[in-house]
Amino acid sequence: MKQTFEEFISFELQEIKKGITLIYFTLKRDIEPKDLKDINPPDPVKNRFSQNLVILSGRGPIWLYGFLIHFYHPVRAIAVFDPRLDSAVIIESHTIEFRVGDITKVEDKR
Amino acid sequence: MKQTFEEFISFELQEIKKGITLIYFTLKRDIEPKDLKDINPPDPVKNRFSQNLVILSGRGPIWLYGFLIHFYHPVRAIAVFDPRLDSAVIIESHTIEFRVGDITKVEDKR
Repeated sequence: MKQTFEEFISFELQEIKKGITLIYFTLKRDIEPKDLKDINPPDPVKNRFSQNLVILSGRGPIWLYGFLIHFYHPVRAIAVFDPRLDSAVIIESHTIEFRVGDITKVEDKR
Repeated sequence: MKQTFEEFISFELQEIKKGITLIYFTLKRDIEPKDLKDINPPDPVKNRFSQNLVILSGRGPIWLYGFLIHFYHPVRAIAVFDPRLDSAVIIESHTIEFRVGDITKVEDKR
């Protein structure tokens, strides 16, 4: 039987500020590369955050982040949360409002 | 005086197999988010690897990988090296030849 991605990963969406959506993922088991074929992350259009800065957060391998970064390519801007900085670092932006290399504080530690 | 990125990061390019380019980065000091504003990674067109699978490798924060993944978005496909798997995991592909979630062994441990 085909697995569903909800068995090994969950996503939590939170609009932490106007125009900023935090996507926090939790792995329920060790993830394997082939699991990427099954993951269908929250859709930015259906969930109405495609015009937002998307902050990715969670504990997982770099290639999972890579997959998510590519998946969210169409949103306004993407940042990656860094627990060492207590901030999200903007890595990609399609607007002058957010600039690559800028950071944004994230209060909610998730 | 404006810093040049060569002061804190270096890139090594290697065509490890026909059609597969490994990009290995080395940080010369701790990298800060604002450093992303200065980095100009090896250009895929000028260096003639835009038609290749690009494997990213090196020790650095996830947001540095995020920046590089976005930078190399136009190449044929992108993979991230995972030392735990001794392999690179394909995270993004614009060709049926490489599929997201597939892995490719990397002999050269760099």
